Amino acid sequence: MESIDIEKIKQDDKDYVLHSWAKQKQVNPKTITKAKGIFFWDDENKKYYDMCSQLVYLNVGHAHPKLLEEFKHIGEIPISAPGFATASKAELARKIIDVAPSNMAKVFFANGGADSNDHAVKIARMATGRYKIFSRYRSYHGATFGAGNLSGESRRFTVEPGLPGFIKFDVPYLYREVIDFENEEAATKFYLDRLRNQMLYEGPETIAAVFMEPIPGSNGVLIPPKGYLEGVRKLCDEFGILMICDEVMTGFGRTGKMFAVDHFDFEPDMMTFAKGVTCGYSPLGGVIVSEKVAKYFDDHVLMTGLTYSGHTVSTQIGCATLDIYKDENLIEHAEEVGKVLASRLEELRGYDSVGDVRHIGLFAAVELVKDKTTKEPIIAYGMDYGKDKVGLMSKFVGLLSKLGFYTYSHESSVIIAPPLVITEQELNESMDLFEQALTLFEKEILFADQAVKS
Amino acid sequence: MESIDIEKIKQDDKDYVLHSWAKQKQVNPKTITKAKGIFFWDDENKKYYDMCSQLVYLNVGHAHPKLLEEFKHIGEIPISAPGFATASKAELARKIIDVAPSNMAKVFFANGGADSNDHAVKIARMATGRYKIFSRYRSYHGATFGAGNLSGESRRFTVEPGLPGFIKFDVPYLYREVIDFENEEAATKFYLDRLRNQMLYEGPETIAAVFMEPIPGSNGVLIPPKGYLEGVRKLCDEFGILMICDEVMTGFGRTGKMFAVDHFDFEPDMMTFAKGVTCGYSPLGGVIVSEKVAKYFDDHVLMTGLTYSGHTVSTQIGCATLDIYKDENLIEHAEEVGKVLASRLEELRGYDSVGDVRHIGLFAAVELVKDKTTKEPIIAYGMDYGKDKVGLMSKFVGLLSKLGFYTYSHESSVIIAPPLVITEQELNESMDLFEQALTLFEKEILFADQAVKS
Ligand SMILES: Cc1ncc(COP(=O)(O)O)c(C=O)c1O
Ligand SMILES: Cc1ncc(COP(=O)(O)O)c(C=O)c1O
Repeated sequence: MESIDIEKIKQDDKDYVLHSWAKQKQVNPKTITKAKGIFFWDDENKKYYDMCSQLVYLNVGHAHPKLLEEFKHIGEIPISAPGFATASKAELARKIIDVAPSNMAKVFFANGGADSNDHAVKIARMATGRYKIFSRYRSYHGATFGAGNLSGESRRFTVEPGLPGFIKFDVPYLYREVIDFENEEAATKFYLDRLRNQMLYEGPETIAAVFMEPIPGSNGVLIPPKGYLEGVRKLCDEFGILMICDEVMTGFGRTGKMFAVDHFDFEPDMMTFAKGVTCGYSPLGGVIVSEKVAKYFDDHVLMTGLTYSGHTVSTQIGCATLDIYKDENLIEHAEEVGKVLASRLEELRGYDSVGDVRHIGLFAAVELVKDKTTKEPIIAYGMDYGKDKVGLMSKFVGLLSKLGFYTYSHESSVIIAPPLVITEQELNESMDLFEQALTLFEKEILFADQAVKS
Repeated sequence: MESIDIEKIKQDDKDYVLHSWAKQKQVNPKTITKAKGIFFWDDENKKYYDMCSQLVYLNVGHAHPKLLEEFKHIGEIPISAPGFATASKAELARKIIDVAPSNMAKVFFANGGADSNDHAVKIARMATGRYKIFSRYRSYHGATFGAGNLSGESRRFTVEPGLPGFIKFDVPYLYREVIDFENEEAATKFYLDRLRNQMLYEGPETIAAVFMEPIPGSNGVLIPPKGYLEGVRKLCDEFGILMICDEVMTGFGRTGKMFAVDHFDFEPDMMTFAKGVTCGYSPLGGVIVSEKVAKYFDDHVLMTGLTYSGHTVSTQIGCATLDIYKDENLIEHAEEVGKVLASRLEELRGYDSVGDVRHIGLFAAVELVKDKTTKEPIIAYGMDYGKDKVGLMSKFVGLLSKLGFYTYSHESSVIIAPPLVITEQELNESMDLFEQALTLFEKEILFADQAVKS
């Protein structure tokens, strides 16, 4: 590496790097010059609380000493192609199965979240001999053609015309459903009855799998109503459909349990993972399959693969990461601090611009509205990615950033998902900043006109 | 990491890991216990010439000291999400553009070969506003749904029913074309005329891109006839179609030049890469786009992305890898040793079972036949992946492995693609082993019956 010169980095970045989900002219990135735990510093030496763990992956925090130490041991295990048995690959697969639901048996490794989902679709089709794939609106599963077609939000449109047999159904999003429900049970019944109908309309015997984020993340941490996921499991059992949970964002402690599914009373047939398995220290993802699915491939060719399946370095970093979760009791810690986050978030309901708060463990979203009664969103559906000229959400996220609270938004929801190592005190400090930003936002931006008028 | 115990690794691998492209019961993997340069040793301390660079990615060889040293510096650049400007990402993008064709301007980073191709398709569609994608039979572009649908061989069938608008055309494969050509020029004219017709039939104004491995790799190192690629370029120009070259396998010196396209007299609009950019020391891939394509995204949203785009560690390893190519003159070396390989391969034409040899730089294939006159292949088309009961190719690759020559085959072609650091002497030693295997194969397996009969 060359010596580090911030101006040169920024110029090279501008000249040579294509940035995701953006008009390149509008990209004006900061550089992180230092990072530690839940904090990072930009090139003006400004300090930030990293309240989204970069892209919800740095569960163990920035610059974890044990992971940086593990990189010093790279090379001790020879880098081997997928066809070999490798110490780190075998150990990590075992460690994942150890912490996964009890019916899980084997792991197929991939590079990231998106390609893991692509491979999961292929595995489900092979194992069932069926081809239709159900997934939900308001979901995000990645940007490859398989994962993109699974996704239920506007980022899907760039992989259309879409894959035949990919069918969408509604996610329970009670805050914005077209009708009101008497209670959670009524909502659950509504969504399950509708799903069952749709399965019948599509021909259950043609449906290979139902794909879902157990708790949709990017689309605003949508906690399912009581009994819903268990009910989907029952429908899948009724029709011989595989239930696949995308735990790319929720996996490895984010929700205060190892996996999001651990909060509920069911076991999926397959799970996909990425982010938290290495906390982004090395690219890794994969598919966990049940004993039943695994058995199918004993005598049938698993017709999928990739050069870096079970990458030696990435799985070595994965082993060290899983050790950290255990040695530092991070999952239990996340559950504990999650309670503090929950109570801070519930208090936000007092703000005029806060429509809803949703949270589980250290995984939360604050949904802002222009008007609490009408629930008018801050940004209309599908108007992310520079389409919204007013840019109210960008302004709010900008305010947060100015105060040193780093995170991102999707539609009208702001994501709060700090590294699991955050302390109670740090969490309170950061939430104080959040409230400062909210107050400023309401006074100087959102309701500024009203103040003038009245 | 736990201490290394070969039996435990193998048992865990068997119990917990799903292996690509195989029936799991038939998987009986070796473990690499030591590796250095072009050699590795298995768990019985048997030494192998790695004549396929694992999966054609270890261009700098096993355990390169500079790359292992670079891992000791991981952490000096903070791990940052794609939205930041990062020292390693910016430097690597610049370094890639420095060595790419002169019209190339910017890099979009992804994780591996397959997802890079998925993103390339999306970028091409956005930049052109068209949706049809041409690619070739007998090509391999990866296993995600985009790359899988680009692929022209049987591994594509698991991503079918396929994506609308993905159209296949024929690759020049002169050894097995249904007609014979007077000379290369006649072949080129034939393929270009047919391609032009097909473009007209599909509606040129609907075609976003023509996707091709400039030299198809997995499918047997198919060197294009003279003027063919330049002719495709002209057709693309005529109809405003983007020409995209998949350099995942050929990129970074494999063919004796930096990129395969450097052997020819044209510039593509986009190129995808992976493998050689880090030599597999860390997962990385990407898309290189021309000035023209890059400009489009100045004012239009690049609607694609992934968590690990421009991964800090992977790009840091990429920078060190590119330095090695330069400092050690590896590309020039590959060109030189490639001449030795070429002459050894040409000599193989004397064997009764050798139908064809194809080679460029350190990228080669030996195509075996049951009968030189009829060209009857050793294994019928599409009968890889355990479908061929006789398993003649497996037997040949097994013989090679027994002699310490490690590689793999696809259909009737054996791939020869050693690390670029191979010396002339090592190359000669390995090719001696290849000839021994060939002699044994003919005598004891392929023509064993005939010997008995006569
Ligand atoms: C639930 C979920 N699935 C899949 C993905 C895609 O992962 P990647 O960006 O690594 O491709 C994401 C990314 O945020 C995600 O949140
Ligand atoms: C030309 C080409 N493109 C794409 C790929 C897919 O790359 P990956 O296995 O990293 O997804 C390969 C893999 O061998 C390849 O040879």
